[in-house]
Amino acid sequence: MPQILINKDKQIIEIPILLTAVSGKIRIKNRSILNEYGTPVAVKRDGFLLSNYVEWQIGYDVVKKEIKKLAESSLAETKFIGANGKVKALYELSEYIWYFYKWNIITKKELEFVIVYLNSIQDHNLIDNNYELQIDRSHPIEKKINGFDFEFTQVKYPLLIYKFDGYEIVTEIKITEKQYAVGTQPMLYLCFPITELKAKDNLIGRCAKTKEIANFEISKNNIKVFLEMLKMFGILSKNHRHDILQIINTIIN
Amino acid sequence: MPQILINKDKQIIEIPILLTAVSGKIRIKNRSILNEYGTPVAVKRDGFLLSNYVEWQIGYDVVKKEIKKLAESSLAETKFIGANGKVKALYELSEYIWYFYKWNIITKKELEFVIVYLNSIQDHNLIDNNYELQIDRSHPIEKKINGFDFEFTQVKYPLLIYKFDGYEIVTEIKITEKQYAVGTQPMLYLCFPITELKAKDNLIGRCAKTKEIANFEISKNNIKVFLEMLKMFGILSKNHRHDILQIINTIIN
Repeated sequence: MPQILINKDKQIIEIPILLTAVSGKIRIKNRSILNEYGTPVAVKRDGFLLSNYVEWQIGYDVVKKEIKKLAESSLAETKFIGANGKVKALYELSEYIWYFYKWNIITKKELEFVIVYLNSIQDHNLIDNNYELQIDRSHPIEKKINGFDFEFTQVKYPLLIYKFDGYEIVTEIKITEKQYAVGTQPMLYLCFPITELKAKDNLIGRCAKTKEIANFEISKNNIKVFLEMLKMFGILSKNHRHDILQIINTIIN
Repeated sequence: MPQILINKDKQIIEIPILLTAVSGKIRIKNRSILNEYGTPVAVKRDGFLLSNYVEWQIGYDVVKKEIKKLAESSLAETKFIGANGKVKALYELSEYIWYFYKWNIITKKELEFVIVYLNSIQDHNLIDNNYELQIDRSHPIEKKINGFDFEFTQVKYPLLIYKFDGYEIVTEIKITEKQYAVGTQPMLYLCFPITELKAKDNLIGRCAKTKEIANFEISKNNIKVFLEMLKMFGILSKNHRHDILQIINTIIN
């Protein structure tokens, strides 16, 4: 991703969003009906619709050894130790919080409240330990399809949706399998309508240009949503909580 | 993947399987109880258990322009046009069928039966069109977690399992979202217990060595399973059916 644009005078951060990325952490998706599960859109071929939204698997850290990704952070000199023992710098979500704290829009008290909140959550209440949020597989039933006798089951993945009151921003927490271990892995996505983006030409009804970028603006009007997101990251798992607590300490100290 | 070993005299094909691959099309997984959904195993760290199995997203074609992948095919000179208009060569599943047809273990009649079978399947009965095999999302319910008012839903992915009578081999068809379009995309996986692998040293109870390879043997004793798999690929979608019909024509002509 291109580096963010920090406007210290206006106290605004602009996030450049590559609209045509077909892989990576930001995707343009579509919901044809409200609450529907979104599907990716080929915006260069099919164009933008009012029902499109940005799905962004937002991050909060970068491992310092990952030089290329580190260069995307405007705070590459910051430092904390992650739950995995790796030396990390602030990135994306934690970067934004850092600036709005320096600009006195987020207060020390607010960040200390998050620390108190996260320390109050018992381990068994963390999302990845929640017994009601496990991946479920239905009992197999027989199903004959085109002459083959299949066993049919459904694999059920929990999805949590949080709507920020008064905002067009939503977070989705998808629970999936851990890649190389037993257990679940919650992943947090930030979603907002493409109408929230600032593009040179209005997006709706036209196709995306090659490598087109539009901006998403973070200001004092929506930064509280990102503070809530930080809190939400902290309840995903023990490792997430460790990281978020380290990040807040890095910001306020 | 390393090239397959073809033993014309013994009429055997050995498939070298990289046991330590952490990404890619072949993974070692574990089921702790029968019928359970498998989870990946870190075989270099945790070693092999009797409950481990190989999950292989087996392919049947390679686009000729993909030089690196094409080099993995022992039949790089074969040629057919895929449903996507690309020039392809036989690869993996179709490669094996090709050899066993040349060795007169699979007969022309058997392959012609597959053609007749696939032509008899109506479009609406193809797996990706089957209305009972769609991705489903449950109606959201409210769920308070650590003070956040979430909406909770389950996203349900159909999974079809086919057990080949008398064999330790199973195919799993997972229905997932298409990457860049609306609709579903069935993916076929071949699964068999690691005890079916031929390793220099017995696998069970020890850790995998760096880049360790074990062999899976295809012979007249199990090739009929692969012929059934070819048939099964052909009912996944219109494009799959087109490809499989082209492959059979390439083999018998």
